[in-house]
Amino acid sequence: MKAPAPLEALTAALKRLPGVGAKSAQRFAYHLLQHDREGAALLARALNEATQRVRHCQRCNTFTEFEVCETCSSPRRDPALLCVVETPADQLTIEQTLSYTGLYFVLMGRLSPLDGIGPKQIGLERLLARAGDGVVREVILATNFTQEGEATAHYIGELLRARGLKVSRLARGVPVGSELEYVDPSTIAQALRDQRSVGDRD
Amino acid sequence: MKAPAPLEALTAALKRLPGVGAKSAQRFAYHLLQHDREGAALLARALNEATQRVRHCQRCNTFTEFEVCETCSSPRRDPALLCVVETPADQLTIEQTLSYTGLYFVLMGRLSPLDGIGPKQIGLERLLARAGDGVVREVILATNFTQEGEATAHYIGELLRARGLKVSRLARGVPVGSELEYVDPSTIAQALRDQRSVGDRD
Repeated sequence: MKAPAPLEALTAALKRLPGVGAKSAQRFAYHLLQHDREGAALLARALNEATQRVRHCQRCNTFTEFEVCETCSSPRRDPALLCVVETPADQLTIEQTLSYTGLYFVLMGRLSPLDGIGPKQIGLERLLARAGDGVVREVILATNFTQEGEATAHYIGELLRARGLKVSRLARGVPVGSELEYVDPSTIAQALRDQRSVGDRD
Repeated sequence: MKAPAPLEALTAALKRLPGVGAKSAQRFAYHLLQHDREGAALLARALNEATQRVRHCQRCNTFTEFEVCETCSSPRRDPALLCVVETPADQLTIEQTLSYTGLYFVLMGRLSPLDGIGPKQIGLERLLARAGDGVVREVILATNFTQEGEATAHYIGELLRARGLKVSRLARGVPVGSELEYVDPSTIAQALRDQRSVGDRD
């Protein structure tokens, strides 16, 4: 006895999602067929729509429906400031702070040689061309504070500095609202190194 | 700034999968658009195929492409024996033992009043009609040995016995290959209650 072929095919397709194993894929497939056929149809349509309509912004590489994304086309943005992030989700997070007015470049990943992700995969050449357009003066590296994110920032930073650009990194330190007791020692150490005199202004 | 509408729609559709939250849905969507557009197209096709072609067997309620599934149509099966399972996955597990030759009824769930799953949702009326067709002599209840599975077996068992059918339950006991030290006490207690004299034959 075997499961019907279309069901097997659906399970296999769901298994391609990152972090989804055979059991989860089967659970998803059963759920869709048994309890949410409407959701299955919706998902199929959404997949087709998204793959047909979503592409990369020619300027900042984020996902967009247009040739150039809304952020890059906005006249209210400071074109001399470029913020480099790993993903559109990171970009969204920064936008939500309402405290950044420059433009972005989205790497769509981070350097990770062991996974075969090198400078080419994160569009480094496009970033260098973008940052070297004569308008950009300062680049803020806002990759994650993970090992790979830090390495990526370091690598990109060196290349940009060599081109005479001002390069900075998001400040590291104790998160707002946290108790020192529960903050990891390396964060505290970093915050001690980067201590600011009280009364400092940005 | 907002994510492109088709991307938002895709994330929302993925969030309908059981156990998938906003973050996972976003990760799936980014992954498909960034790294696996072929997988996205494949998944869309598989969803359409499965929802169009997979239905429930008229006899045993399992997923099938046909009016009556292959197992139910097989002449080599003993029609006097009916095994009740919760899901097609459980049915598959029992088939893999190669030690059951009867037919099945798949509940596609278990009684779970708190989740609004009552006798109707598990197709109890169809099961009673199926078991009362005059051919079935014995029903083996192979729902899971969880609280809900046990309650379901108990409930169904009462109804079937009242109709004069022989009803049995899969034996509980110590799993093959396990060390007593690591088996939970209630399983040992059950195994003690159901002890068999050495030399017993099935």
